Amino acid sequence: MVIVMAPEATPDNIDNLVDLVATAGGEAYVTRGVSRTIIGLVGDVQQFETLDLRAMPGVSDVLRISAPYKLVSRENQPSRSMVSVRGVPIGADTMTVIAGPCAVETPDQTLAAARMARAAGAALLRGGAYKPRTSPYAFQGLGEAGLKILSDVRDETGLPVVTEVVDAADVELVAGYADMLQIGTRNMQNFALLQAAGEAGKPVLLKRGMNATIEEWLMAAEYIAQRGNLDIVLCERGIRTFEKATRNTLDISAVPVAQNLSHLPVIVDPSHSGGKRDLVLPLSRAAIAVGADGIIVDVHPTPETALCDGPQALVEEDIAALADLASTLSGLTGRVLTPAPQPLPA
Amino acid sequence: MVIVMAPEATPDNIDNLVDLVATAGGEAYVTRGVSRTIIGLVGDVQQFETLDLRAMPGVSDVLRISAPYKLVSRENQPSRSMVSVRGVPIGADTMTVIAGPCAVETPDQTLAAARMARAAGAALLRGGAYKPRTSPYAFQGLGEAGLKILSDVRDETGLPVVTEVVDAADVELVAGYADMLQIGTRNMQNFALLQAAGEAGKPVLLKRGMNATIEEWLMAAEYIAQRGNLDIVLCERGIRTFEKATRNTLDISAVPVAQNLSHLPVIVDPSHSGGKRDLVLPLSRAAIAVGADGIIVDVHPTPETALCDGPQALVEEDIAALADLASTLSGLTGRVLTPAPQPLPA
Amino acid sequence: MVIVMAPEATPDNIDNLVDLVATAGGEAYVTRGVSRTIIGLVGDVQQFETLDLRAMPGVSDVLRISAPYKLVSRENQPSRSMVSVRGVPIGADTMTVIAGPCAVETPDQTLAAARMARAAGAALLRGGAYKPRTSPYAFQGLGEAGLKILSDVRDETGLPVVTEVVDAADVELVAGYADMLQIGTRNMQNFALLQAAGEAGKPVLLKRGMNATIEEWLMAAEYIAQRGNLDIVLCERGIRTFEKATRNTLDISAVPVAQNLSHLPVIVDPSHSGGKRDLVLPLSRAAIAVGADGIIVDVHPTPETALCDGPQALVEEDIAALADLASTLSGLTGRVLTPAPQPLPA
Amino acid sequence: MVIVMAPEATPDNIDNLVDLVATAGGEAYVTRGVSRTIIGLVGDVQQFETLDLRAMPGVSDVLRISAPYKLVSRENQPSRSMVSVRGVPIGADTMTVIAGPCAVETPDQTLAAARMARAAGAALLRGGAYKPRTSPYAFQGLGEAGLKILSDVRDETGLPVVTEVVDAADVELVAGYADMLQIGTRNMQNFALLQAAGEAGKPVLLKRGMNATIEEWLMAAEYIAQRGNLDIVLCERGIRTFEKATRNTLDISAVPVAQNLSHLPVIVDPSHSGGKRDLVLPLSRAAIAVGADGIIVDVHPTPETALCDGPQALVEEDIAALADLASTLSGLTGRVLTPAPQPLPA
Repeated sequence: MVIVMAPEATPDNIDNLVDLVATAGGEAYVTRGVSRTIIGLVGDVQQFETLDLRAMPGVSDVLRISAPYKLVSRENQPSRSMVSVRGVPIGADTMTVIAGPCAVETPDQTLAAARMARAAGAALLRGGAYKPRTSPYAFQGLGEAGLKILSDVRDETGLPVVTEVVDAADVELVAGYADMLQIGTRNMQNFALLQAAGEAGKPVLLKRGMNATIEEWLMAAEYIAQRGNLDIVLCERGIRTFEKATRNTLDISAVPVAQNLSHLPVIVDPSHSGGKRDLVLPLSRAAIAVGADGIIVDVHPTPETALCDGPQALVEEDIAALADLASTLSGLTGRVLTPAPQPLPA
Repeated sequence: MVIVMAPEATPDNIDNLVDLVATAGGEAYVTRGVSRTIIGLVGDVQQFETLDLRAMPGVSDVLRISAPYKLVSRENQPSRSMVSVRGVPIGADTMTVIAGPCAVETPDQTLAAARMARAAGAALLRGGAYKPRTSPYAFQGLGEAGLKILSDVRDETGLPVVTEVVDAADVELVAGYADMLQIGTRNMQNFALLQAAGEAGKPVLLKRGMNATIEEWLMAAEYIAQRGNLDIVLCERGIRTFEKATRNTLDISAVPVAQNLSHLPVIVDPSHSGGKRDLVLPLSRAAIAVGADGIIVDVHPTPETALCDGPQALVEEDIAALADLASTLSGLTGRVLTPAPQPLPA
Repeated sequence: MVIVMAPEATPDNIDNLVDLVATAGGEAYVTRGVSRTIIGLVGDVQQFETLDLRAMPGVSDVLRISAPYKLVSRENQPSRSMVSVRGVPIGADTMTVIAGPCAVETPDQTLAAARMARAAGAALLRGGAYKPRTSPYAFQGLGEAGLKILSDVRDETGLPVVTEVVDAADVELVAGYADMLQIGTRNMQNFALLQAAGEAGKPVLLKRGMNATIEEWLMAAEYIAQRGNLDIVLCERGIRTFEKATRNTLDISAVPVAQNLSHLPVIVDPSHSGGKRDLVLPLSRAAIAVGADGIIVDVHPTPETALCDGPQALVEEDIAALADLASTLSGLTGRVLTPAPQPLPA
Repeated sequence: MVIVMAPEATPDNIDNLVDLVATAGGEAYVTRGVSRTIIGLVGDVQQFETLDLRAMPGVSDVLRISAPYKLVSRENQPSRSMVSVRGVPIGADTMTVIAGPCAVETPDQTLAAARMARAAGAALLRGGAYKPRTSPYAFQGLGEAGLKILSDVRDETGLPVVTEVVDAADVELVAGYADMLQIGTRNMQNFALLQAAGEAGKPVLLKRGMNATIEEWLMAAEYIAQRGNLDIVLCERGIRTFEKATRNTLDISAVPVAQNLSHLPVIVDPSHSGGKRDLVLPLSRAAIAVGADGIIVDVHPTPETALCDGPQALVEEDIAALADLASTLSGLTGRVLTPAPQPLPA
């Protein structure tokens, strides 16, 4: 940590800080400049943070130098992690496609979407049974009935299931059906939910909050990790900006930045960021080319009747193109496309 | 609703839409322009929304014209609401000051802060027992022990208590102690929490999400209202922008805009938006002058030892100035400063 | 300046930096922490900046500690400045209202608007003869004919004239008619224009770029100051954010922040930030209450025929209310309302 | 255009609007809904815009349906354009790499950088002789001396020259040396400069303003086109958001969105958006994969001594990788890498 003193700080102000740091078990190194003095601190940063140095007389600024997250950082673990979802890997050597409907509506719709997912090169099935919706009057998901449908479709198709959980109280129930828990953009800082997910014994897909910095996203992952679960996959899904031509602005740079700061896998959601069907394939290409460890894509057999986000779902005629680009582009960053598991024998 | 057709839409595309609207029980009025056709819809908007018109062939855009929130809108209730917090009013005729420490730390600190609050003109005491923190390593609040302290301090000082709840599972417990439930900026779209708060039988202070549009904020209020609770006070607390000179950017215009769209009271938090002590009084003046129905301010007897947000808390020497501006400025928008209730007789 | 080394930096990396700083005439103080080393630099910051320290091996970050602007900073001049516009003061002791039409359209319209301005308490007349417009098909202003109208209206009403200049090549011409040059939000980083304005011998009203940080705004002022002109008034007029309920988001906190960093006067434009007539008076109250040194307001005798920004102009029936709030609220921050100069005797 | 009436609009308000539209030579179609009335307008939109319909009594909103730009739109020209820069094509069939130093510093540095550019697969040389800098104390470019260096290096290497112009007064001079004029992000709405560039007889590279919507960017292009110059290439270079981990946020989705709205070529600047060397190659891959018509990249022989933006320049050891990805990936979207022209025979 570095304390930057105000130009008008007195020698007493500086002495007080040096003493304060010493009582907290640290050491303070003072550098007097022409117009300001800076003080470098050596010791336990957690301890220093309790001192509220910023509120001390004469202090202009306090700069934190090391990252505030630990367990998920590459300083803690230099090599990149591989997360296994019921045997399906997500990591640095593979390109893993997750696909499925935004919301589970019926058994037929879910099964048809899962077959589309498989045909598109997906190794995992996504689908929401609990939907966080801006409006209380919008479809909120089927709940446990939706989880049962997902479970049946997994048995039928072999694709492990990724599904969202929106409340800490539901984590145990959802974890009983799902192979991977998804935490959505609006819940990225729902800390009770993060902690419950950290204790559920299942891998977690953590979407970036649409207003979250990359640092806050990694801090949210740290909440999960701190409960003993390091099977976390980060998902960039667009941030909120002034530009309204797309639903959100896909922050494609976040992929290499987050991979550089954290050992966790990072995937991209080209469907929710763009919000339009015709952007999904171009953004999928960009995501794979930039080096993402996977993509998660909405598909729907009949989007014109979808109860949620129909306009962005890929349709039957897009499937071959998605499968083609996933297999063609994976090699670009030295990966292999993760194959779908086989269904259980009847 | 208005459907805007693409320039290349065919007559068949238009006929299909007219038929579809008719099957949904609505009427469609077609206006053919030089380069485009628009279709005005009359009927049940909720019904139209299930049609996913945007995904139909030939459709370029679908514009919603009426507000998506109902119960909290001024179309539903033209006159502005007054919310009563254990007898303390927040509404259009009063200026209500809420003050207290960011976090409850000890009985002495909380009592001292409550006395500062009272001296500053506050009629309600704020204080957090559950703190949502970006870092899992930061102080997370005292939990129920903190609620008991707040309850004791209320008995001692007479000030009703506003305190945050961060998880739906805690709502019943918190509502047992608090006079008003606060939902924080990170939880504005935690829909399970909103619904639980809507059923708790206590007024709710709903902070605007730092990334939320005013419309989304009103939709969040609608979630609470839909569960039968219209005792909701909106709180503007700054939005996230590119400017980093302040913690967040106080959206002062949101006060008149939200008051114009909704009948609910709107207050301002000058402490969390600015993030710096020396901005609190100027921003408080701005908030009262713009027409806010109240302000909520951090005060702390010894901010240099605060466990949370010390740098923005007002201190003893600021209290008289806050009291003075609150009483002087209230009249500016035709209000009276809400007096503090008397303590219970011993 | 402080150099933060990467965790993997070698002792050689550090020695190289110390040597490099020495060759630039500075001194480097090394503080070795547990996981990182930091190096504090003492000497000429301009010189250090040419070294591109950030690109040196082992460097993780370079933090600048002192402000990059000099002439406009309060470190350079602690007391706040007063700028005189043909005898009309803008500064810390006064509240100065500038009003007039967005664009000069006709002599009658401009004169009528100037009389409204005077009735509203304004001491200066605003009006655009050169209009930067997003669309090449929109009205671009009358040019020199508009300047002549403004000059005539000044003679008639006594109000000195503030008008925008949009191209460095026009500065001399505009300065021949105007009493104060306005630089608009889209030109805040048009450096050729800033430099020309700095040499024109007239005070400058510098609007904040809608995407500019406060620091960049002060750097733009520094461009003007560096050419020998310190008669600069800063104008906050709203920044671009995700919120679309208002045209821009008025950053009310920018007023005290900029006043704290710079000695220059800071005024507020409540018309262009809100973009709606019914927000102008509330935002004017907020601006005066927060401590602005003035406000600049659009007025128009017949806004329904205005060629530019009619929807936000105050009309005849708002004038008394503006005059009233300007005189009532000025005292709030210890100011007097600046009186309008008398017209020249015929 | 569509006028949305307020719920409280009267029949008189509606009749007035219908009459007003008729006097402007248009037709108004009224649709009465349950809570609101909407009015569809058919006729000349430019004409309607002069009416300031938004300011009329009873009007809640006015929605523009057609794009405000004409010449650059795909409605005007459905097939995508190819722009030729001294014989080097930029368009839908090619992938064109532009590379060079951020600033021209010396003949040797520029020649070395041009050779790196050529080795990296570039067909055009970039380099700044006029540099818009946030600080008046930073290096501002060599001016005409820099242009001469660029011209000499073009003769030596055969690479046509792209260089920035920052003031309308310099356009003629710069156009005398350059093969393509660049307009930078801070000048995207410097309308005098856009118009001058439109008349200079050279193709223009128009960078997106860091705060500009895609629509505003296309409107800026319309300013150039309106002066008779349709040889415009759009360049996405990152927008300003709350995220500070990168210098700006590369809006990768803007590429397909702009290509869909406009027939102009769209390229990407991966150097200025990310601001860090290690992001340049990943973002270049993303840009090519998403379908950009080219990329523009900073290279520098000795970035540690660069006078401008050294930290983001590619260095010698990156050149082979850039050449490799440019040639490998071009085919991905059905293109061929544009070859560099041969130098003139001595």
